[in-house]
Amino acid sequence: MNRFSAWALEGIPEVSPGDDLVELVAAATASGVDGAALPSWELQDGDILVVTSKIVSKAEGRIVAAADREAAITAETVRLVASREHPGGVTRIVENRLGIVAAAAGVDASNTADGTVLLLPVDPDASARALAVGLRTLTGARVGVILSDTLGRPWREGQTDVAIGAAGVHVFDDLRGQTDAAGKPLLVTMPCVADELAAATDLVKGKATGCPVALVRGLGRLVGELDLPGAASIVRPPERDMFRLGSDEARAEGVEAGYASGYTDGYADGFAEADAEDA
Amino acid sequence: MNRFSAWALEGIPEVSPGDDLVELVAAATASGVDGAALPSWELQDGDILVVTSKIVSKAEGRIVAAADREAAITAETVRLVASREHPGGVTRIVENRLGIVAAAAGVDASNTADGTVLLLPVDPDASARALAVGLRTLTGARVGVILSDTLGRPWREGQTDVAIGAAGVHVFDDLRGQTDAAGKPLLVTMPCVADELAAATDLVKGKATGCPVALVRGLGRLVGELDLPGAASIVRPPERDMFRLGSDEARAEGVEAGYASGYTDGYADGFAEADAEDA
Repeated sequence: MNRFSAWALEGIPEVSPGDDLVELVAAATASGVDGAALPSWELQDGDILVVTSKIVSKAEGRIVAAADREAAITAETVRLVASREHPGGVTRIVENRLGIVAAAAGVDASNTADGTVLLLPVDPDASARALAVGLRTLTGARVGVILSDTLGRPWREGQTDVAIGAAGVHVFDDLRGQTDAAGKPLLVTMPCVADELAAATDLVKGKATGCPVALVRGLGRLVGELDLPGAASIVRPPERDMFRLGSDEARAEGVEAGYASGYTDGYADGFAEADAEDA
Repeated sequence: MNRFSAWALEGIPEVSPGDDLVELVAAATASGVDGAALPSWELQDGDILVVTSKIVSKAEGRIVAAADREAAITAETVRLVASREHPGGVTRIVENRLGIVAAAAGVDASNTADGTVLLLPVDPDASARALAVGLRTLTGARVGVILSDTLGRPWREGQTDVAIGAAGVHVFDDLRGQTDAAGKPLLVTMPCVADELAAATDLVKGKATGCPVALVRGLGRLVGELDLPGAASIVRPPERDMFRLGSDEARAEGVEAGYASGYTDGYADGFAEADAEDA
């Protein structure tokens, strides 16, 4: 039967730079909740832990003063994708150094200590791997780890959680080459299960509850070797990206290029006509 | 404790035009699986059913001949957002009549009978509501219903399931005005829980398994009145949409406009300079 459960781990304390997340997570999975007589709270083979990237940032000390927020966004930015002014300021959608397109480059001011903002982990896939290795070693269970972040998206209101780091878990359920229930080949179907896991666990982790880690049990088919491709493989390469630039920004770029070539042509034509009149 | 379970209902037969989905879904929830002694398989207050929109399309007879696929896409299209040629043909990303931006307007050729393609339901929110009303009436349980579809997205490879119809369930978990665990206001945070539910259940429904309906138990806090806003409220209005047009398309539009105004200016300047030379 296809079934899974997801729950938020309780008892993870506020994380500080240098904290050992392997220990904190393992302790939270072992403690259970209210002595509930559920299937063992210890980690099992096939469990997947979805960890809010924010606590990884905190453990890694990726904290900067809020006063330096704009400079931090700029430092994390590879290129501007789109920007928009609104009553509260300017929203900058940028591609950050990880290739992730995100508002404010993923620099985050919620659930942080007063006067500080958080940068994303330096290398979320490496952080996920360190967690997966540590948890596998400590508990003996073959678990997968996903690091999640909250992103907006084009065309649709609101945000969903997605995977920005992954280790020991398939990020895609690659169905290309398989057939549907009617026997027809599934040509382009490649569900991003890592993003779906991140989205699923946001439903229990929430943003206001102080539970930054969720455990998913029942999807062991998605757990694999530690050297599987990480979440970096979810980032679409530029040559396949049809929305590399915001519509207004792309149009403005076009207007400039078009004006220049039109001006040159018009200028030449102006002379040509003037010459014809002179003749 | 924050916990939910999601499972795919088994025993839903191939759906044909005119089939009563309320009966089919209710029967599937009541039958259980292999006599498993799990918590009751009957629907309970707070259960959420996520139904692949494809079977709603089938029940509604939204089937057209595959030969008419291109015409069907055109008929479902309100405007072209972006298109790209590739070895297999042309991918058209369009806004369809529901405001949803999707490849091929959501016209679907997988899990359909040979020689046919499926259009999206006429009004997915209305279809979700009819299902929710029917299931609430038949079972007495206060359930929510989401209709899901599989969509690609900019910047990230692969697809995730999202909500295109909803009834009796909150589509957003509106946290604006609430505070984070550190006591700071969550200014713009509005998780799209309907999309997250659709994504979560894709992990158990799959695409190759013939299980088009999943049940989510444990998130009753998201279930509400039947007149809650539907999935149409997820569609971002044009004035808030920074990616209304593909980058290439927006740039081309700009080049044309820029060329025209540059040409005019250049033409005028050409004359002006010619006049100056004449003087």
